[in-house]
Amino acid sequence: MSEDPVSLVLFSGTDDKLNAAAILAAGAAAMDRKVNLFLQYWALDAFRADRIRKDHGVSAEAGPEGAEVMRRHGEGQQHWSDVLAQAREIGDVGIHACALSMEMFGISKDDLDPLVDDVEGVATFMLEATGPVTFI
Amino acid sequence: MSEDPVSLVLFSGTDDKLNAAAILAAGAAAMDRKVNLFLQYWALDAFRADRIRKDHGVSAEAGPEGAEVMRRHGEGQQHWSDVLAQAREIGDVGIHACALSMEMFGISKDDLDPLVDDVEGVATFMLEATGPVTFI
Amino acid sequence: MSEDPVSLVLFSGTDDKLNAAAILAAGAAAMDRKVNLFLQYWALDAFRADRIRKDHGVSAEAGPEGAEVMRRHGEGQQHWSDVLAQAREIGDVGIHACALSMEMFGISKDDLDPLVDDVEGVATFMLEATGPVTFI
Repeated sequence: MSEDPVSLVLFSGTDDKLNAAAILAAGAAAMDRKVNLFLQYWALDAFRADRIRKDHGVSAEAGPEGAEVMRRHGEGQQHWSDVLAQAREIGDVGIHACALSMEMFGISKDDLDPLVDDVEGVATFMLEATGPVTFI
Repeated sequence: MSEDPVSLVLFSGTDDKLNAAAILAAGAAAMDRKVNLFLQYWALDAFRADRIRKDHGVSAEAGPEGAEVMRRHGEGQQHWSDVLAQAREIGDVGIHACALSMEMFGISKDDLDPLVDDVEGVATFMLEATGPVTFI
Repeated sequence: MSEDPVSLVLFSGTDDKLNAAAILAAGAAAMDRKVNLFLQYWALDAFRADRIRKDHGVSAEAGPEGAEVMRRHGEGQQHWSDVLAQAREIGDVGIHACALSMEMFGISKDDLDPLVDDVEGVATFMLEATGPVTFI
């Protein structure tokens, strides 16, 4: 086992990638690893309090068939934000909003879902990123 | 040199990204590193036995010009599945299908190309992921 | 702090992802880490001398609203190539073009912006990649 945290940079805001990210975070937390999420760009937008549970679409490559597979399978499944909430209960999972992206959208901490711990700069994020850095 | 394995999460199913992934896997194997691939979502779909050699398109951003460059260059080049098969011959490369994505598509191991070793959960994958975790 | 370099594989050529990559590189360099960039596919295309400063669009998922947010915020901000140039001044940042992608586009080192140090193979890149390997 590794002592180094798993650092996930969430860039994409589509539900397929956010779901993949939540599953990786939960898997790492289940293996007793510290996890840090850093929310940028379209992923940060998806964590706004007023839209976190809304439909965020899927990657362009999914196509209509892939979108339908996801929709059908999604019913009765946990939302990715619930998977993240659960990952926090079983492990040490920090969720940080990128200060530059906050500025780009012109939003403040209050606009974000309470799942988000704080706003931080990229240097602070990289300082803790002594293990894998995964961009999603 | 690092003793830690290179863990590649394959999410995208377009031929440009699958090709990039195969090249990274082969490069890591050539450097004597253990490589683990974890197939999720649209990448898993691309590893189905009945479609692995079909045209999987390219990323939206490639545009018609980029698609044409790839098509022209692809002729006479190895297919990404051949690059992976070769990487397995020179090194230790495991190819694992994500159990959750298998369930989403409603498919079983028999539906996948024989290149795929087994089906595993994300926690098992993360347990071995003591080195870089690269999401493609 | 980690002694291992941060290895960034730049695959995507849209301005939102190139900007995110430049920011991560600068953040890592500010934390005194060695950074290696490896330019493939559409990212390599964006580093051509005749188009590095042109509009490279944004990810499909951004949508018209996201593109407008970026455009408005981009005015008065540094271009990602300037962020990278600055990262090189404060730290040890190598920028390498992928030999296979060079061949695909049929271009030579002279076609690239002077920011790019050299052309190298993936095995050479992976040899130095003892830390995180982040695919963007």
